[in-house]
Parts: sequence; C-alpha cells; structure tokens
Amino acid sequence: MDNFNFYSPTEFVFGKDRENDCGKYVKKYGGTKVLVHYGSGSVVKSGLLDRVKASLKAEGIAFVELGGVKPNPRDVLVYEGIDLCKKEGVDFIVAVGGGSTIDSSKAIAAGVKYDGDFRDFYCGKAAIAAALPVATVLTIAAAGSEGSESSVITKEEGMVKRGTGSDLIRPKFSIMNPALTCTLPAYQTACGATDIMAHVFGRYFTNAEEVEITDRLCEAGLTTMVGETPRVVADPDNYEARANIMWAGTVAHNGVVGVGRSQDWNSHGIEHELSGLYDCAHGAGLAVIMPCWMEYVCSHNVMRFAQMANRVFGVAMNFENPEETARKGIKAFRSFLKSIGMPINFTELGAKEEDIPVLVKNFVAAKGENTGGFVNLTPSDVTEIYKIAAHATV
Amino acid sequence: MDNFNFYSPTEFVFGKDRENDCGKYVKKYGGTKVLVHYGSGSVVKSGLLDRVKASLKAEGIAFVELGGVKPNPRDVLVYEGIDLCKKEGVDFIVAVGGGSTIDSSKAIAAGVKYDGDFRDFYCGKAAIAAALPVATVLTIAAAGSEGSESSVITKEEGMVKRGTGSDLIRPKFSIMNPALTCTLPAYQTACGATDIMAHVFGRYFTNAEEVEITDRLCEAGLTTMVGETPRVVADPDNYEARANIMWAGTVAHNGVVGVGRSQDWNSHGIEHELSGLYDCAHGAGLAVIMPCWMEYVCSHNVMRFAQMANRVFGVAMNFENPEETARKGIKAFRSFLKSIGMPINFTELGAKEEDIPVLVKNFVAAKGENTGGFVNLTPSDVTEIYKIAAHATV
Repeated sequence: MDNFNFYSPTEFVFGKDRENDCGKYVKKYGGTKVLVHYGSGSVVKSGLLDRVKASLKAEGIAFVELGGVKPNPRDVLVYEGIDLCKKEGVDFIVAVGGGSTIDSSKAIAAGVKYDGDFRDFYCGKAAIAAALPVATVLTIAAAGSEGSESSVITKEEGMVKRGTGSDLIRPKFSIMNPALTCTLPAYQTACGATDIMAHVFGRYFTNAEEVEITDRLCEAGLTTMVGETPRVVADPDNYEARANIMWAGTVAHNGVVGVGRSQDWNSHGIEHELSGLYDCAHGAGLAVIMPCWMEYVCSHNVMRFAQMANRVFGVAMNFENPEETARKGIKAFRSFLKSIGMPINFTELGAKEEDIPVLVKNFVAAKGENTGGFVNLTPSDVTEIYKIAAHATV
Repeated sequence: MDNFNFYSPTEFVFGKDRENDCGKYVKKYGGTKVLVHYGSGSVVKSGLLDRVKASLKAEGIAFVELGGVKPNPRDVLVYEGIDLCKKEGVDFIVAVGGGSTIDSSKAIAAGVKYDGDFRDFYCGKAAIAAALPVATVLTIAAAGSEGSESSVITKEEGMVKRGTGSDLIRPKFSIMNPALTCTLPAYQTACGATDIMAHVFGRYFTNAEEVEITDRLCEAGLTTMVGETPRVVADPDNYEARANIMWAGTVAHNGVVGVGRSQDWNSHGIEHELSGLYDCAHGAGLAVIMPCWMEYVCSHNVMRFAQMANRVFGVAMNFENPEETARKGIKAFRSFLKSIGMPINFTELGAKEEDIPVLVKNFVAAKGENTGGFVNLTPSDVTEIYKIAAHATV
C-alpha cells in the first residue's frame, strides 16, 4: 500500500427534510451573512430555495442570492459572485444545487479572499491560501463535489475547462436529502449514476498490489450502484434506492475508496473531449468511453478485470480462461449501462467518427502525448479507443 | 435509510515512516507545547518515542512527557496528566500508543479545559464544552479510537469503566504506520482483528431495511479482515496485510460503515463483563461471545445471517433452507476465530460457568433489564448466551 493522507472533514447531514436545518448549520459554522448560490429554475420551482431561505431567516441570518449557474459553470458568474460577496460583506456561501453550483461556489469562496484574478487558481499561477467557508444543499447524486476539495470552472472565452483543489474549499457541511433527487428525469439520474461508477473505477484500476481494503470498498460502491440504479430508473420515487445512490456518490469521490494506490483518470479525460465538442452530458460520454477503455487495456491486467467481473457483475470465474471472465465483465458493464438508458456508442451519443482526429488533438492538448495511470496512453492508443467507441454494441 | 450525520474530520497520515512527520503536523494544527502521552515500555524500547520527540525538536516544539498508561486506562493517570498540562501550559496532546493511550489523552484534553472533575463527562453529569487538540501515533489496529469521538476511562476505585464522546476530542490527525504493528505478538494481533470485526458487526446487524451501501461497506471490511488476518498471524512482518488491517480498523469505527441504520452493541456489552471479571483481552472475550450471540439471535432474521454467510464467508446459499446457510456462516466465523488463535469458549478464555449469575447481574447493572438493538435482550436471554459460550466448540 502506498503512503497516503486521507482528510474528509465535511459534516454530512443526510436524510429527509434536512434542508430545513440549513440555517442551524450555517450558525454552527459561524456564518452571519450568506450568499445563497444556485442554478436553474428547478430549485426555485420545487420550493427548495424557499425552504433554505426560510431556515436562514428562522436563525436570523442575513443573505443575498445569486442564481443562474449553468452546467459546466462559467467564470463570468464567478466574477459576479465575487463582486457581490465583497459588496455585501458575505462571510459564508451556501450552494443549492449539483456539482456545477458547488464548484462555482467554491471558486467564489476562494476568489473573495484573493486580490488577483481567481482564475490564477485554475491555471496553476497561484494556490488557494484563504477562502470563505462553503456549504452545500445537494440536489443530484453525481459529481461528489459535496465532499471533495476540487472545483472545475469553464472560461467562457474559448470554453476552456480547468480545475483546482484545496482543503480550504471543502464544504463545511453538506445537506443531502435523497428525496430532492426524486424529480430528476431518468436520463439525468442514470448519467449521475454512471459518473459515480466512473469515480470508483478511476480508483479501482491501479497498479498497486494487495490493497485489498480499498478494492473491497470500491466493489461495495460498484455493487451498490449496479443494484440500486435500475430501481430508481424503474421507480423514480424509490427513496431507499435514491438514498443508497446518494451516499454511494459521496463515498465514491471523497477519497475513501482510493487511498494507498495509484489511480487512472484517462477514461475521464477521453470523455471530456466528447462533452467539450458535443455538449453532451459527462455521464453519457463516460458510458460510451469507459467500457471501450476497459476493452482496450484489459490485457494489461486480466486478473484485475476478472476480479471486477466476478465480484461486481457476478460473472462466474473461468479458471481455465480468466480473460473470458474479464471480457464478460466488461460486456456486463456495457449491458448494464444500456439497460439504464445510457448511450454506448458514438451514434447514440451524437458523436461522429470523422471527428476522432480533432478529439485526439484536443485530448493531447489537455493531457499531453503520454498520459500516466493504470496504462500509459499515447495519441494512437486514444485514437483506437475512440474507434472502438464509434461502433460499440452490446 | 434513517436520517444521519456523518462527521470524521481527522486527517489520517498513513504509511511507512510517517511518525517522523509528527512535529510538522503538530505545527500545522497549531500546537506549541505538547504533552507526549504513552503507555508501556514498548514504545520506548522500539525507539518510536525517540523518533516522535526528534520530530518535535526538529520543528522547535517544546514538550513534556507522561508515560504509564495501562490497558483499561485509569482515572488516576488522567488527573496527573491534567495537572501536568496546566502546570506546563500544554496546548496540544500527542498520544503514542493504542486505544488506551488515546482514550486517556482525550480525557486529559477535556479535563484541562474544565473546572470540575473530568469524570463528570464520563457519568453524564456534564458535556464536554472545550478540549485541548489531540493527535495520535497509533501502534495497534484494534480500538478505532484514532478516528473516533469516544473515550473510555476506568475509575480505579471499584474498577468502573465508563465512556464519553464529543467531536471536540476527535483527533486532529492520526499517524498510522502499519510497520509499527509488526512487532505485536500474534495473540494481540488477533485480539485486535477480532475487535475490528466486532465494530463492523455492531453496525451490520440492524433492523433497518434496504441500506445496501452500508451493508456492502460492512462486508468490504469483514471480507478484508477474513482474508488479511491469517496472513499476519502466519507472517507478522507482512506489511501489506498489516496495512490493510490497520486501515480497515479505522474504517470499521469512524462511523462510515454504520450510517443510516440502527445498530447493536449487545455482544460488546456481554463481553465487557467477561473482561471486567477475568481481566482478559477485550478481543478474546468478543471471540467467545460474538458467535454465541449470533446463534442465539439468528432466527430473528435468518436472511441477514444468510447474507453474512454468503457474502463474507463464501458459504453457498441454500435456497431451500436459508437457515442452514445462516448457521453455516456462524460456524465459519467461529472456525475463523479459532484458526487465528482466539479462544471460543469459557474454558479457553479462563471463564467459569458458575460465575454466570454474577456476569448477568453485572450486565444488568450496566445495561438494564431490557437492552435495545437488533434483538432486545432480557437477563434470561443474556444467561442463555453465556451458557452457549461456556461450552461452544467448532
């Protein structure tokens, strides 16, 4: 096991109606003047925003509001948020929404305490040295930002997406009411579930040996997602299944299932160019790419894929031919994704095979000629993976 | 899933040689004058204490020392520690040892900031309102105190053991070097492993339904322990297996495998009277009691025990007779405990059947006539469990 630090200080406040306690937790963590940051109309229409504001009022906490966060949150709104916080003397930010709203809030929190351009944190020019405290009221199980130290912001000019991270922008508390996710469309739910599984797989495929505890914790997350996702797709109001998925989403990305080992985020990066070029959902792009990446790198460590097949997808181990088991597991994963309504090839996603050279060029621009991870990928490897993705079938 | 809060803010600093960074982390968390608290001679003889002190010196951090913590840590040493901290102006405590040393340090930390008798916290007379920051350098995988909010202290007069808990006494950081546990005797290692499994089982046996994610996380911890413990018993210097067990020990008791559900700590309580009366190791007593408790309550929810049997011990599911599967699982657990050198009945533990009335009387005095949990236990139930334990065989 590699040496590691694990630090996840966020207080998770989980369950029915917990958003009504938001004001109490803001008070507990010292907020006196809050920016309530949110995205689209759904948090307004559902009444969630009103409940959060009522809970602040009940505690006598002043607040200002800033809505309008878009998926792939933009820098222009971050600047607006920073100005608003400075003008209003805000000392605490509550993000009401999903990963985009939370990431935008984290950027504002760091920007308020910085004299330069907040984008310095997102291009490696500066490290976050101070930030306003941030908290979240989560509305979708997917990104894991409610328990993470990271934030990704898109520069509107040129749509360049860049990330940063610091323990200073970890949420102080995150309110997670699974019932808030029951109104999500099945497609968005399945995209979130795919993203959660991708966060676990990013940690599962490692070259570290004998890290059984994190292997098993990864498999716990994955088997939960395999079992629970079809339940919410079939029955969106299934609170128990929603709850299992929501907590799995946090566990998948707060670091606990990835300690002590190298990781691999190449399929995330390969997907990124798809959602960049076609503006598709990140989870949908991952559904297309992940099984193809697995097929392409399977021979690097057949037994690891056989372990996944057996422990996660219940494929019987073929002791005479472990590779058959391994490849059956990857097929089972793709079939699972298809069954929850995800696309599995370029056509279903709305991507075009003739764009592959552009996709590869963009990937190389972002990640370089030789990416690290479970398997190093050259541009020709990435090309091959996109080609498999163009025509994949179950 | 029941509503829950999950909060585990400790920074875990895990791996080889990490104790040499102790001074850096004390500085990071604001300590300027440290009490180094420890137990027996082993941390001295091994050179660990010297390495910790050298790391403090390297950072220019002043410190005082207090050794002599015994298993089942005593109030008298806590008083001594409180006086020493006040006299020396200590503002940070580093516990170098296992659960007893950590619990003693937590008691001192709370006592220093309290005008009354620190035991008020341990008998429900007062709640902890402030505490010195505590950190740990862990030397045994067992109690989980390195990541928990709890502390148990024994009043020397009458040997009364009582616990308290507060987020204020959670360690700021815990340094966990698995190599430090390689010198532990096999028996003590196995006792620690049994304690870790008991911490998971206390969360696994629940009446909450459909909490799949915590079920799976529990099973991840248990399967890891079943796989890794025999490896360290056979080969004490196996760093990888030690590392898996050490991290499993933290995960087992920092709360993450128990969220969203009722728990059951009756077998812990039933054991407690054994170690109280016979001064045996807590883990050894648990090895005797846990399978007997399982046999006694199995019929309450046969499918839950069948799930354990199948998922943790690999017992094939008998779909025509799930109870057979369930009972095979309990037998497999007892056989596992025997195989790692644990006692499995009164004789092997050094307990006496004729003491059962005393044990039951003590249990009732501590826990009352009707204990809650997975199954409520009356004094006659507890008597029956002790009777099974008197004669258990593999």
